[in-house]
Amino acid sequence: MKAVVITTPGGPDVMQVQEVDDPQLNDEEVLIKICATALNRTDTLQRQGMYPLPNGVPPYPGLECSGVIEAVGKNVDKWKVCALLGGGGYAEKVAVHSGQVLPVPKGISLQEAAAFPEVACTVWSTVFMTSHLSSGENFLVHGGSSGIGTFAIQIAKHIGAKVFVTAGSEEKLKRCKELGADVAINYKTEDFLSRVKEETGGKGVDVILDNIGSSYLQRNLDALGLDGRLFIIGFQGGSVTEINLSSVFARRLTIQAGGLRGRTAENKAHIIANIQKHVWPAIEEGKVKPVIHISLPLSQVAEGHRIMESSSHVGKILLTI
Amino acid sequence: MKAVVITTPGGPDVMQVQEVDDPQLNDEEVLIKICATALNRTDTLQRQGMYPLPNGVPPYPGLECSGVIEAVGKNVDKWKVCALLGGGGYAEKVAVHSGQVLPVPKGISLQEAAAFPEVACTVWSTVFMTSHLSSGENFLVHGGSSGIGTFAIQIAKHIGAKVFVTAGSEEKLKRCKELGADVAINYKTEDFLSRVKEETGGKGVDVILDNIGSSYLQRNLDALGLDGRLFIIGFQGGSVTEINLSSVFARRLTIQAGGLRGRTAENKAHIIANIQKHVWPAIEEGKVKPVIHISLPLSQVAEGHRIMESSSHVGKILLTI
Repeated sequence: MKAVVITTPGGPDVMQVQEVDDPQLNDEEVLIKICATALNRTDTLQRQGMYPLPNGVPPYPGLECSGVIEAVGKNVDKWKVCALLGGGGYAEKVAVHSGQVLPVPKGISLQEAAAFPEVACTVWSTVFMTSHLSSGENFLVHGGSSGIGTFAIQIAKHIGAKVFVTAGSEEKLKRCKELGADVAINYKTEDFLSRVKEETGGKGVDVILDNIGSSYLQRNLDALGLDGRLFIIGFQGGSVTEINLSSVFARRLTIQAGGLRGRTAENKAHIIANIQKHVWPAIEEGKVKPVIHISLPLSQVAEGHRIMESSSHVGKILLTI
Repeated sequence: MKAVVITTPGGPDVMQVQEVDDPQLNDEEVLIKICATALNRTDTLQRQGMYPLPNGVPPYPGLECSGVIEAVGKNVDKWKVCALLGGGGYAEKVAVHSGQVLPVPKGISLQEAAAFPEVACTVWSTVFMTSHLSSGENFLVHGGSSGIGTFAIQIAKHIGAKVFVTAGSEEKLKRCKELGADVAINYKTEDFLSRVKEETGGKGVDVILDNIGSSYLQRNLDALGLDGRLFIIGFQGGSVTEINLSSVFARRLTIQAGGLRGRTAENKAHIIANIQKHVWPAIEEGKVKPVIHISLPLSQVAEGHRIMESSSHVGKILLTI
């Protein structure tokens, strides 16, 4: 790199811009590509040989700078990030709109942080920003042991909702309860609608987050109470079915569906800003923890997909690069 | 770079880690060096060719990641930084302890941000963290038109202090008044001690920030009122002189001196954290502005030193890399 070298103690002209070695990055440091620096009076003393340098500082003058961080030392927690992507995460590098980037929450490792962007954006933008789940309300999330589910349970409990989940095995239901779920329903052995009615004294729930679609639609609508809101984020049970609008009318229900990926950059940035304000503090207080089923190296991506398609996992499956 | 390529639509084994082109960085984007990514169910749909990709997204799967920002697009304001250095700012790159790095305040350009670290750390760590200047108190800063002075005037006014400055020309005094100084004293034509006494009804000031040392010491002590605090950050007027301790005793004065450069990394990180909390909001609200005399290219560093040694400048002298 280029740097100003004090060739010998003396007047201003002893300083020359020379080619020198790039700085070494220690584990506690960040490497900054400098945009600008500013002069300080001690620089002129240093130039004249009248300012003994503290140990370990660079020999070139300059006590401040602005710039862009180019590398981060091993032990540095600050200045590391996680991001919501349109694609390209299964790679060594990715370019992403700056509005989709979040700092890694305090107390979370850089690797664990990869478990949060998609679930936080999906759950927060639907259940909270759109369906307005609030403290004291009843919330049902299908697939409670999925990445989405394990996050939704924790953040909904943190907000003060009563949480109902469905899942397909006793082991998964147990994990959901450990994460805070109040009512855990085995959809293979129980009808979730009857159980919801029973647990709520016939009243129903206020908000449902659903990843099944068609095959659950009528039962989801029937499980909602007055002014209930259904948000559909997946169609594992199909996307075409019959609907009876009279129940929607009678209880003033809201049916919504949507995904993250097709949203505009501005819209995603708005969601990200909301998450940094409302969700990140909950993570930093330890109220919402990353739930990671397994971390695999990038080369074992096929194994990761097999696990996901077998639906045997609880929480997120990570790939490390 | 390496990335997971979907070689053909199909089962998990159609995915292969291959060498592909690095991503192109657009002006609104940041480039992330990925640490980890996470699987999402839509990745399995994409793998099977059942998920039409939105325009402009990378062809590789992966909807989220964690990592380190490696480059920042031209129009991106977030994720740019400024830093307090032990040295080495007159260069293209510098490695610095992560605790000495601050985000660029909102509303401030990357180049302007280089004007803040040294003055903010110096003034905040002395006048506020040590000498505890508070609202309603009287504050005298010598060299009011210097980088330190122009910053000290603004932040002290913002805090609610009455600000007295000294400077060596009517033009400099005028600039100090424009920045908010209440009383501007030309030290070449007036005795600052008499003027301070006169303006305060004989009471004196509460805090003095001094860069002169010996030649001002007795007058500084005489200018302080009961429980007054003097902080010395420079010795342009020498460092050895006689002191009369009886006045220190009589008015319970505090005399302190110190610099930034020799402080430990922990201590600097503590100051930086304080500044982000207390000073950055004032800058972002426009209450404290960067005062930049001139920006020169790195190759004109000698000219920069000549200006500084002539003391003809007001505010900071920047070098752009």
